[in-house]
Amino acid sequence: MSLPAVLTIAGSDPSGGAGIQADLKAFTALSCYGTSVITALTAQNTTGVRGVHACPPEFVQDQLESVLDDIDVFALKTGMLYDGATIRVVASTLKKYYSEKPLRLVCDPVCVSTSGHALLLDSALGSLIDEILPLATLITPNKSEAELILSHKQRKVTISSLADMTSASKELLTLGPRAVLLKGGHVTTTMKEVHELLEKDPAISVYKYGLLDENMNILQVALSEEDRISQLVVDVLQGSCGLGGEVGTSLFIRPRIESTSTHGTGCTLSTAIVCGLANGLTSNLFLLLPLWRLIAFCSVPEAVRNGTIYTYLGILHAFPVGAGHGPLNHTHSVVSRSVPRPCPRDRYPLTRALISSTASVWKEYVEHTFVKELGKGLLDKRCFVHFIKQDYHYLKYYARALALLAAKSTSFTAMATAMQSVQNVLHEISTNHKTFCTRWGVSEKELEETPESTATTAYGAYIMDIGFQCDTVKLNMALAACLLGYGEVGLWLADESKRPGSWVIMDESSNPYAPWIREYSGEMYQKAVEVGLATIEGIGSIAPVTEERFEEYVEIWRKCVMLEKGFWDMAIALS
Amino acid sequence: MSLPAVLTIAGSDPSGGAGIQADLKAFTALSCYGTSVITALTAQNTTGVRGVHACPPEFVQDQLESVLDDIDVFALKTGMLYDGATIRVVASTLKKYYSEKPLRLVCDPVCVSTSGHALLLDSALGSLIDEILPLATLITPNKSEAELILSHKQRKVTISSLADMTSASKELLTLGPRAVLLKGGHVTTTMKEVHELLEKDPAISVYKYGLLDENMNILQVALSEEDRISQLVVDVLQGSCGLGGEVGTSLFIRPRIESTSTHGTGCTLSTAIVCGLANGLTSNLFLLLPLWRLIAFCSVPEAVRNGTIYTYLGILHAFPVGAGHGPLNHTHSVVSRSVPRPCPRDRYPLTRALISSTASVWKEYVEHTFVKELGKGLLDKRCFVHFIKQDYHYLKYYARALALLAAKSTSFTAMATAMQSVQNVLHEISTNHKTFCTRWGVSEKELEETPESTATTAYGAYIMDIGFQCDTVKLNMALAACLLGYGEVGLWLADESKRPGSWVIMDESSNPYAPWIREYSGEMYQKAVEVGLATIEGIGSIAPVTEERFEEYVEIWRKCVMLEKGFWDMAIALS
Repeated sequence: MSLPAVLTIAGSDPSGGAGIQADLKAFTALSCYGTSVITALTAQNTTGVRGVHACPPEFVQDQLESVLDDIDVFALKTGMLYDGATIRVVASTLKKYYSEKPLRLVCDPVCVSTSGHALLLDSALGSLIDEILPLATLITPNKSEAELILSHKQRKVTISSLADMTSASKELLTLGPRAVLLKGGHVTTTMKEVHELLEKDPAISVYKYGLLDENMNILQVALSEEDRISQLVVDVLQGSCGLGGEVGTSLFIRPRIESTSTHGTGCTLSTAIVCGLANGLTSNLFLLLPLWRLIAFCSVPEAVRNGTIYTYLGILHAFPVGAGHGPLNHTHSVVSRSVPRPCPRDRYPLTRALISSTASVWKEYVEHTFVKELGKGLLDKRCFVHFIKQDYHYLKYYARALALLAAKSTSFTAMATAMQSVQNVLHEISTNHKTFCTRWGVSEKELEETPESTATTAYGAYIMDIGFQCDTVKLNMALAACLLGYGEVGLWLADESKRPGSWVIMDESSNPYAPWIREYSGEMYQKAVEVGLATIEGIGSIAPVTEERFEEYVEIWRKCVMLEKGFWDMAIALS
Repeated sequence: MSLPAVLTIAGSDPSGGAGIQADLKAFTALSCYGTSVITALTAQNTTGVRGVHACPPEFVQDQLESVLDDIDVFALKTGMLYDGATIRVVASTLKKYYSEKPLRLVCDPVCVSTSGHALLLDSALGSLIDEILPLATLITPNKSEAELILSHKQRKVTISSLADMTSASKELLTLGPRAVLLKGGHVTTTMKEVHELLEKDPAISVYKYGLLDENMNILQVALSEEDRISQLVVDVLQGSCGLGGEVGTSLFIRPRIESTSTHGTGCTLSTAIVCGLANGLTSNLFLLLPLWRLIAFCSVPEAVRNGTIYTYLGILHAFPVGAGHGPLNHTHSVVSRSVPRPCPRDRYPLTRALISSTASVWKEYVEHTFVKELGKGLLDKRCFVHFIKQDYHYLKYYARALALLAAKSTSFTAMATAMQSVQNVLHEISTNHKTFCTRWGVSEKELEETPESTATTAYGAYIMDIGFQCDTVKLNMALAACLLGYGEVGLWLADESKRPGSWVIMDESSNPYAPWIREYSGEMYQKAVEVGLATIEGIGSIAPVTEERFEEYVEIWRKCVMLEKGFWDMAIALS
């Protein structure tokens, strides 16, 4: 599983809420491989910017070339660029490296911090407009940045309504970027304005999130009056808005959240859009397409939609940090695997985790006195006969549970695997089990008439209960301890028997149980074990094993391992 | 859900594999709020370091003070500190801010890059030893860093075996840190050496990961001979090793992986340990303890164990980046929620996502012609009677499915909720439903004798099938469309009726169906809807709704919404 490489060219915020720090957090949360070129260090926190240490432009170039020489960057953003020389270096370097491949550049035209500190020198605005904007796939100004840019060469522009935003975004488009996202966080908008705009231009696309839409009356009942008439934030996307690069307008609408956790909102949004562009590429089978067509498959509106949702949820799920305007929660969407995915060099991580989590009881089961005595050939015949009889009863439950597994399966493959396991049990009963019984003088009638021990009922009924109560994943978990455990017991005894002077005797004349060991360490049974391992690991590779799920799995696994141990206990105590 | 704040004081690696970039990725993946103070910019990539631009020491101080003035940093690390002046500034600032609270500092004594570039000036080694080491909770040198540090003031030291590592780690401890983790990545070690060491000192603790341990024979069968005799990496922890700060030795053992993806391994490990210390704190109810006791509850070995596992898996799951020594995969453990957690300002994210994902069919269901005609009072009486009769049959399935839900529940609370729902259905049948039947002249005998329509069988049997096949989560999902949908239909009609001149007639003399609308928009039914919403959202708040799970949920939800629509279709077509 490879992640697409992305790049941010921006300033550093030591307090971690904005700048390349926010960008790297978002890259990580949004499954991209993040790289970063630092244009300037700042000393800042949630209360404001204390100072700026600009990086020499030539060292910005060194950083940028280091990245682009070595790593194939799919999409990138610029944030705080600070001065004109840096802007020119960035522009010329990007032009050089992307002369023959598509440049997917999101420009966040950062000018002033939330707290009012200049993050772009006044003298540099012209360079930003002339050098960077024409290279950009998308620019993402907020109200004041858009006003600054538009007022730079012409009359003073003020944006205070949705209509203003629409016309301003069209004007910004004439400066060269392929698309403009004019952010509405600082513009008050109502749904009425949206409807008026849509009446004038029905071709406008609308993307809503987090709003209680039509046919959602049941979700409104519990809301306070204040929440119900919540104000909106509307971002306006202008420019190449379709999958094929069609020109048009799109609106991205969500509820306005009153929050002080807004530090780094702009950085986060532009970064999340970069991730959308990069991930969109990889999910669009781009390897099959000629290079020059790539750009058409980056859906800007789709990336913007996902980016605005990620940023909105970051504010909604923010937790307090610092005394001023705190950061967004960049990890609102992140959940951790408790058990890693299987990979070629680690094929059984879930099975290993199950065994490790129950190491002592698993050992008591595998290396049980019953097993050891059986290995030595010293096991009391009556114990073995008792075991054989109870095993007969248990295997009925086991086969029924496997049949239930087949009945609960959703695919023919899963059904076939389960049915094959039923066949294996039926085969075991009619061959191996029968042989043992004949050898030990146990008739079929006697088998059937032997009363079921409590240990047998407990184990058998438990797997049936899991089967009736749970889904196939947990039923598979309940079936695993028996299948894998007997395989482990067989292999352990067989391995031990190979040591010089071993206590395990495999000569049938000295150990009447040698065929039993051969059976469970043999190829046929171990093939079944392999299938069982693949089933267990399949669980982990399809759905991530989070902490909660692992706890559920291990609860069933542990219970079964203990019931297995109880089964040996019962056999050796003849109870 | 708040994350503990952590800090890295280190260099910047634009290519994203090491330095503060690696640190911020690991912080994000390991659920910490990351902040970062940059000591030096580098221009580097996976093939090597091209240049270093040191940050002025006073600006390092500005950054550090910005962070510490505003944010309560629970644990921190130092990486590349570059020069003596920076080291002195960092040490004095940390002493100032942590004079009255415990400083949990992991010092990664970075000296030379993997590619051989100096990341600490020769002149600065003495300062690192004298100023930083005595402040550190833990230092994490590798072989060459340990050799450099130990050789600084005395004879030349060489470390080439596990025994060397043990004695070197003890010597390093005398330099002042409370614990030393001497990393074994560059020392060849065998299990034989480990056993020899353990024989000499049985008090040594051993933490293994990723090894095929005893009673894991079944997992070895499929391995190649090469994999089976894999070499080890052993890290040696020396110093305060217990939960209560006991002094001792611990070994952290894992398989050695042949890989070129090792760029940033040291940065990542020390950062992951910082996260372990910070998260260990928060999970230990530290708010209940007096501040000075906090330190005792940071388990260094536990943090080291988790850190080494995270780093090991990062190498194991690495994907290719760049032409040289590529980075680790910092996101190997990261899974994304597809639907956010519920929170006070967003109480129904999962229900909203289900409705949004099926918006058009949900609308066809809620605003069905049957519903509209019923609202207007124009619905053909025969259609309504047909509906009432089929609903009677359907509710039998529904009540049975609820009873099955109770039978499959694991808690008494869940059972009580399910049983209450069964009671609600029985109540509905004996009161409301009965009233309608009497009013419309349908006898109980006629009800029972009416043949079940295919639409009724399809819907009823489907929820029973989900109930038998799946767990309670999915059964709840299958039961939701009916409960929530009728609530939505009721509220929609009631809301519409309130508009001036509405098409919905609530006057019983003009609309014989008005009591039906009142029933489903009424308080009692809407209370049941609220319980249903809480059940659905409970699913999302207990286990994260990943993309795979959401797809499974929405599949069931969509099918049920379509079956609901089919039910109206059947009623209006009288078939």
